[in-house]
Amino acid sequence: MAELRKQIPGWALDGDRALRREFAFDDFNGAFGLVARVALLAEAESHHPEIELEWGRAAFRTWTHTVSGLSRNDFILAAKIDLLAES
Amino acid sequence: MAELRKQIPGWALDGDRALRREFAFDDFNGAFGLVARVALLAEAESHHPEIELEWGRAAFRTWTHTVSGLSRNDFILAAKIDLLAES
Repeated sequence: MAELRKQIPGWALDGDRALRREFAFDDFNGAFGLVARVALLAEAESHHPEIELEWGRAAFRTWTHTVSGLSRNDFILAAKIDLLAES
Repeated sequence: MAELRKQIPGWALDGDRALRREFAFDDFNGAFGLVARVALLAEAESHHPEIELEWGRAAFRTWTHTVSGLSRNDFILAAKIDLLAES
């Protein structure tokens, strides 16, 4: 898991059971844009993070309900959210 | 303000300084649908609530930054969100 974490340096461990990252924006439009892209990804992969959205900020928290903690899927989702945030 | 609150019975006062309401859904699609509609409304009215979104749940919290509390605009936004949730 330490190896997986190196791939997503922007994400923090949240109580050892979830990964969390916040993204800052200059407006609401940008923050909602990322949330919308993540929503489509989440639906396509059937792996849905918790999402917070407000003016200038979007945050995501992912964990795997079936194991009540982190699985490989959470790291993959985190990496894909990073890619969406760069695009 | 008591009169305004009667118009939006589904909303709770959050520390006397904000209005908050949660909506439950059977899936992620429905929850994101409401969030997307509220996002477009918020952008059009330049009044942006805090939004929480996860599988089966969307929540909104609104207050007015310029007065650090509730204004008439928050009650109007709450009522409009209720209408979007019914549509």
